[in-house]
Amino acid sequence: MNFASDNTAGVAPPILDAIVAANRGFALGYGRDEATARVTQRLSAVFERDVAVFMVATGTAANALALAHLSPPWGAALCHDECHLVTDECGAPEFFGGGLKLIGLAGEGGKVSVATLNRALERGPWGGPHHVTASVLSLTQATEAGTIYRVEEIRALAALAHDRGLAVHMDGARFANALVRMNASPAEATWKAGIDVLSLGATKAGALAAEAIVFFDPARAANMGERRKRGGHLVSKHRFVAAQLEAFFADDLWRSLARHANGMADRLAAALTAAGAAPVWPVEANEVFVVLSREADARLQAAGASYYPWSSQSLPAGITVGADQVMVRLVTSFATTEEQIAQFVSLIR
Amino acid sequence: MNFASDNTAGVAPPILDAIVAANRGFALGYGRDEATARVTQRLSAVFERDVAVFMVATGTAANALALAHLSPPWGAALCHDECHLVTDECGAPEFFGGGLKLIGLAGEGGKVSVATLNRALERGPWGGPHHVTASVLSLTQATEAGTIYRVEEIRALAALAHDRGLAVHMDGARFANALVRMNASPAEATWKAGIDVLSLGATKAGALAAEAIVFFDPARAANMGERRKRGGHLVSKHRFVAAQLEAFFADDLWRSLARHANGMADRLAAALTAAGAAPVWPVEANEVFVVLSREADARLQAAGASYYPWSSQSLPAGITVGADQVMVRLVTSFATTEEQIAQFVSLIR
Amino acid sequence: MNFASDNTAGVAPPILDAIVAANRGFALGYGRDEATARVTQRLSAVFERDVAVFMVATGTAANALALAHLSPPWGAALCHDECHLVTDECGAPEFFGGGLKLIGLAGEGGKVSVATLNRALERGPWGGPHHVTASVLSLTQATEAGTIYRVEEIRALAALAHDRGLAVHMDGARFANALVRMNASPAEATWKAGIDVLSLGATKAGALAAEAIVFFDPARAANMGERRKRGGHLVSKHRFVAAQLEAFFADDLWRSLARHANGMADRLAAALTAAGAAPVWPVEANEVFVVLSREADARLQAAGASYYPWSSQSLPAGITVGADQVMVRLVTSFATTEEQIAQFVSLIR
Amino acid sequence: MNFASDNTAGVAPPILDAIVAANRGFALGYGRDEATARVTQRLSAVFERDVAVFMVATGTAANALALAHLSPPWGAALCHDECHLVTDECGAPEFFGGGLKLIGLAGEGGKVSVATLNRALERGPWGGPHHVTASVLSLTQATEAGTIYRVEEIRALAALAHDRGLAVHMDGARFANALVRMNASPAEATWKAGIDVLSLGATKAGALAAEAIVFFDPARAANMGERRKRGGHLVSKHRFVAAQLEAFFADDLWRSLARHANGMADRLAAALTAAGAAPVWPVEANEVFVVLSREADARLQAAGASYYPWSSQSLPAGITVGADQVMVRLVTSFATTEEQIAQFVSLIR
Repeated sequence: MNFASDNTAGVAPPILDAIVAANRGFALGYGRDEATARVTQRLSAVFERDVAVFMVATGTAANALALAHLSPPWGAALCHDECHLVTDECGAPEFFGGGLKLIGLAGEGGKVSVATLNRALERGPWGGPHHVTASVLSLTQATEAGTIYRVEEIRALAALAHDRGLAVHMDGARFANALVRMNASPAEATWKAGIDVLSLGATKAGALAAEAIVFFDPARAANMGERRKRGGHLVSKHRFVAAQLEAFFADDLWRSLARHANGMADRLAAALTAAGAAPVWPVEANEVFVVLSREADARLQAAGASYYPWSSQSLPAGITVGADQVMVRLVTSFATTEEQIAQFVSLIR
Repeated sequence: MNFASDNTAGVAPPILDAIVAANRGFALGYGRDEATARVTQRLSAVFERDVAVFMVATGTAANALALAHLSPPWGAALCHDECHLVTDECGAPEFFGGGLKLIGLAGEGGKVSVATLNRALERGPWGGPHHVTASVLSLTQATEAGTIYRVEEIRALAALAHDRGLAVHMDGARFANALVRMNASPAEATWKAGIDVLSLGATKAGALAAEAIVFFDPARAANMGERRKRGGHLVSKHRFVAAQLEAFFADDLWRSLARHANGMADRLAAALTAAGAAPVWPVEANEVFVVLSREADARLQAAGASYYPWSSQSLPAGITVGADQVMVRLVTSFATTEEQIAQFVSLIR
Repeated sequence: MNFASDNTAGVAPPILDAIVAANRGFALGYGRDEATARVTQRLSAVFERDVAVFMVATGTAANALALAHLSPPWGAALCHDECHLVTDECGAPEFFGGGLKLIGLAGEGGKVSVATLNRALERGPWGGPHHVTASVLSLTQATEAGTIYRVEEIRALAALAHDRGLAVHMDGARFANALVRMNASPAEATWKAGIDVLSLGATKAGALAAEAIVFFDPARAANMGERRKRGGHLVSKHRFVAAQLEAFFADDLWRSLARHANGMADRLAAALTAAGAAPVWPVEANEVFVVLSREADARLQAAGASYYPWSSQSLPAGITVGADQVMVRLVTSFATTEEQIAQFVSLIR
Repeated sequence: MNFASDNTAGVAPPILDAIVAANRGFALGYGRDEATARVTQRLSAVFERDVAVFMVATGTAANALALAHLSPPWGAALCHDECHLVTDECGAPEFFGGGLKLIGLAGEGGKVSVATLNRALERGPWGGPHHVTASVLSLTQATEAGTIYRVEEIRALAALAHDRGLAVHMDGARFANALVRMNASPAEATWKAGIDVLSLGATKAGALAAEAIVFFDPARAANMGERRKRGGHLVSKHRFVAAQLEAFFADDLWRSLARHANGMADRLAAALTAAGAAPVWPVEANEVFVVLSREADARLQAAGASYYPWSSQSLPAGITVGADQVMVRLVTSFATTEEQIAQFVSLIR
C-alpha cells in the first residue's frame, strides 16, 4: 500500500531491460553516443517537429535549467503558488536563474486561470528598471493537485503570455499522465498550444532517473549545453539515460504506463467515493486527495499504508478539513496494483 | 580499442546486477530508503570513522557542491591549473560557489607541490577586503596526468593548507585507481592525511552514475542537503544510486576494478615503451600519455582506435611534441582487455 | 509642489557643508580615513552599544547586502508583500542572496502582524531539504504605506522570529521618520526590541548618498567587508560618505530633518482631510496616501504638482478607489515647505 | 607627501562646486533628472557617436556590471593577470557575472600582447560544452603598472578578439591619464580602435564618486538598467552623480586634471631617476614604480610619506628587488604639488 509518491515505485521492466541492454561495449560519453541521437529523433517524431533535447537525471534540474534559460536574472516566472517549483525545489529556480523571482498565483485545484494571469500581468508594475520583468509562465502538467490543463486552457494562457512577451514553460513531471487523459496528441498538448519548452518527466512514470528538457524551437536552445554542464547535469555515461528514454517512448510504453497509473487512481477514487471519502479535486491524473478522519488515518498507518498528509490553500469552496481530520495525498504509479487499492480502501471503512 | 575515457566503458556486472536487484517493491524517495543508510554505514566502515555522505550522479556536481560548501563566495580554491575543476567543468565551481575563484597552480605531472602552494599562499595578497581569501586547497587524485599524490605529499600539502586556514578537498574521480597503487588504507589516504571532504567517484570506476561527497567531519556537512537539493542533485529514486555504491564497496569490488584498470595501464605502458613510445609521465593510475608520430596516430584512428589528443603545460623537462607528432591520452578501465592493448600497440610499431 | 519622493529633494545644507569641509587634504581610501572611524563611534553612542557599521551609497545595496549576510542562499526572507524589497529593487535581494527567496506576507497598512507571521511560520513546510528555510524577518520602518511599527510590535514580531530561528532585519530607509514619531530611543526601537541588523537610511532624510548597515552584534558582521567590496559597494573616497553620516548624526540633525518632514506630512494630511480627502492610512511618517478624483489629479498635474499614482492590496476595509478616482502617494521631506502644501491643497478643492 | 593612491585626493574644486550648484530645488530621482540626460549628450559629443551611459559610484561596479553584461555566465574574460579586475575587486566580476571566469594573461608592464592573447585563444579548449567560452577581452587603460596601450595596440588586440567572437571592454579607471598621453581623440582611443564598452573613471581623476559605463553600441545596453538596479548601483539622488560628470567633461577639465597628474608623475620620475632610482616601467600615466632601499623606505615613512609597497610578476628582464630593497608604487593626482615631490625626493638621496 505505497501511495507516498510515484517515485517510490521502481523501474518499469522494459526500461530496466533497456538499461541492461545498453551495457554492451564502449560508447562515447557526455551524449556523443548513438542512443542519445536516437532519442532526439524519436522525440522529434513524437512531437511532430524538430526539437532540441537535453537529458538530465532529475526533474528539479530540468525545471531550473529550463527557467534559467528562458528568463534573464531580472525576470519573474509566474506560476501557481503551490506548484513544485515554488514549494518543493528548495530555491533551485532562483539559484539557477541568478536570482530570478518566482511569483506564485492562486488558483483552485492547482491551476492558474486566464483571469488570474491577466490580473497579475495587468497589475504590475514590471520592468523599467525598478521592477522585475514578467518573463516566463510556467504551467505544471499535471498539477500538484492532480488536475490537468486542457488544450484550450493551455492555448489561452500561452496566448496571453506570448502577447505580453513571456515565454511559456511546462513542468511535465507528470506529462504522460496528463496526456493520456486528453484527446490530444503530444504536439497538440504542447507547442501547438503555445508551449515553448517542456520539462518532460520519465522518472515518476517508470524510469530510473531520466528527464528531458525539450525545446520546440531548437534555436532557443543555444548554449543550453554549457548551462547544463556547469550545473553538473551532463551525465557522463549518457547512453544509460538515453536508453531509458528510448525504451520509454518505444512501443507506446509511456502511454501504457501512464494509463495504468491513471486507471489505478480512478479505481482508488471510485472506491474512496463509495466509502464516503470522495476526492477533493477531480482526479485527472494519478493523484487522489481525500480528507480522512484521524481515526482512519491511524488505522491505515498502523496497517503499513504509506502516504503523505497534504495542505492546500486552493481547495474548492465548501471543502474544509476538520480538527479531527487530515487531508492526504495518494499517488498511484505503473506499479500500483488493484490489491493495494482494495486493501487500502478496506481499511477506511 | 577504446581508450577515450574510463567513462566510455559500461557498468561493471556486479553493479548492474545490484541495480536490477534494487528494483523490488517500493522505497521512499530522496534518500530515505534503506540502501542509502547502508551506504553511509559502509563508507563509515571503509574510512574508519563516522562520515556524512551525499550521493549525486555526476563528478562535476560532487566537486562543485563540495567546493561551494567549503568556501565562501569571496574565497579562492587553489588547485592545479590543468585539473578537471579548472579546465573541464565549464565553470561549475564558480557557479555553485556564487562566484568563487579558482586559482590554478603550475606543477609537473599534474601535481601541486608544497613549494608552489607555499609560494602562492605567501604571495597573496589575500582578504581584507579587496582580495579574495584563500579558502580551499583541492587536490585531484589521481591527477589529470595519471599521477598520484602519495600519503606523505597529501599530509604536507594539507598541513600547510590547514595552517593557513584553508580546507582541503580531494577530487577523487579516480580515487580507487590512486588508492590501490599506494600502500595505504582509505583512511590513511584521506582524513588521516588531512583531507576534509572527498569527492569519491564510482562512475569512471564501473558504476552507471554514482558519486559520493564524503565529509569526514559530519558537522561540516550541515545544510549540504539543501545545497544539493537546490542544485537539482537529489536523485528521487535514490535507492538506485545507493545500490550502485553498495555494490561498489561490497567484496572489495572497487579495489578489484581499479586494480584491473591500473594493471591494463601498466601493461599498455610497458608495451608502448617497448615500442619506443614511453609514457611522458609516470603511469600511476589508469591513464597513459604518449607522444605518437602523426603517422601512427592516423594508422590507429583508421583502425578504429578511440582516444583523445592532449596538450599540457606541465610536461617534464626534455619532453617536447614535434610538429609531426601528437600527444595522446589513453585511458584504461575495468573493461579494458589485453587484446585491445595488444591490437593497439601492434598498430604503433 | 514636489511630492514625488523624498529623494527628489536635494541635500540638507549641513550635510552639504560637511562634504565641502571634508575636501581638505588627503585621506586614505576605502574607509581607512578618520571620519569613517568616527561614524562608527557615533553610531555606537547613538545606539548605546558597540555596533559594526558598513556604509554604502544606496538603500538597495544596504538591504540586499544585509539580507545576503543574514540568510543562506536556501533561506527565505519573510516581509510584507508590498515592501520595497519585494516590489522595487528589481530582484536585488535574490541576486545578492545567491537566489534566496522573498516571501511576501499580506497585511493592512503595509505592516506584517504577529498573527500573519505566525501563520506563515506554522504553515511551512520549511527546510529538510526540499523546502527553503525561513531565515530572516525583514520589517520596513517606516512602511511603504507610511505607517510605523511601534516598539511593542517590533518586540513581539522579533520574539516570534527569534523563537523560530530567524534573524530580524529592519529596512530603515525612513528610520528617522519612524523614530521621531515614537517615544523611544534608537536603541529601544531596534536591538532592545530584537532587531539584529538595521539598514539605516540617510539619503531620503537629507544626505546625498549615504546609508549605513548597522550590525548590533559586531561578530555577526564577519566578512561583511568582503561581501560589500565584491558587490562594488565600497566607495573609494570613503571620507565623503562618512562626512555625510557624521553631519547627519551631529547636533541631532537627523531628528530635526525627520521632524520637519513628518510635520509637513501631518500638515498636508490635515489640509487634505479638511478638503474632503482624508488619508487612507494613518500618517505616521512622511508619506500621505489619498484618493483623488481624476479631475483633481488632472488639475494638480497641470499646475505642475509632482507625485506618483499608487496601488495597494492592503487598503483598509471600506476604502475603494472608484473608476473616476486615483490613489496617489505624496511624500514630504526636509525640503518641503508650507507654501507647497498650501498650493497643493488649494488645487484639490 | 601622499602618493598612496589617486583616491586619497579629495574632489577637484570645479566638481565640488558643481555638486553644490546641483543642490537647488527638486529633481526626479534615479536618473530621470535633466543633468543625467545632459551627461549622455555630452559623452556622445566627446566620443563622436551616440552612446548609452550608465553612471555608478564605484569603479568595481562599473567593471563588474560591464563584464556581466558582455559575457554569459559560462564565458571567460581574458585580461592581464595583475589587473585590478583580477587582483583587487574581491571577486566582483565573478559575482556579477554569475560565476564567469577571469583568465589572467602574463605580460610585461601590465600589458597583454597580441602574441599572448593569440596563444591563449589558440590554446583553448573553449566551449562545447565542457569548457568555458572566451567571451570578453578586458584591457586596463592605463594599466596597473602605469603604462598605456597605444591606439595601434588596442586596434590589434581588439581585432583579434573580435575575430574570435569576443567583446572588448576597457577598464578606464585612469582613462583620462592615458588619453592625454596619446595623440588621439577619445573616439580614436576607444570605439574606433575596437572598444565595445568603456568603464570611464572620474573618481580617481578628481570626482567624489562617479564612474560611467559607456556602451558605444547603445543596442548592446538593453536591460543594463535592470542589471544596475538589482546590483544596488542606481543612485537615487542621481543628479549629484551626473553633476560630477558634467563638470568633469566641461571646459576640458578632465584633460587638465589628468595632465596635471601625469605631469607630476613625470616630474617625480625625473627626480627619482636623477636620484638613482629610475622607475621600473615607463611612466605613461600617473603612477611611478621604483625600487627603494629599505633604509630610504624607512626614512620616507618616518617623515610621513604615504605609499604602498608593490610586487609584480611582470617586471622587465633585469629588474630585481633585493632583500634589502622594496618596490613601491607612487601615485600622483590632480592634487599633487611640486613641493610634495621635492620633499619626497629629497628624502631618498
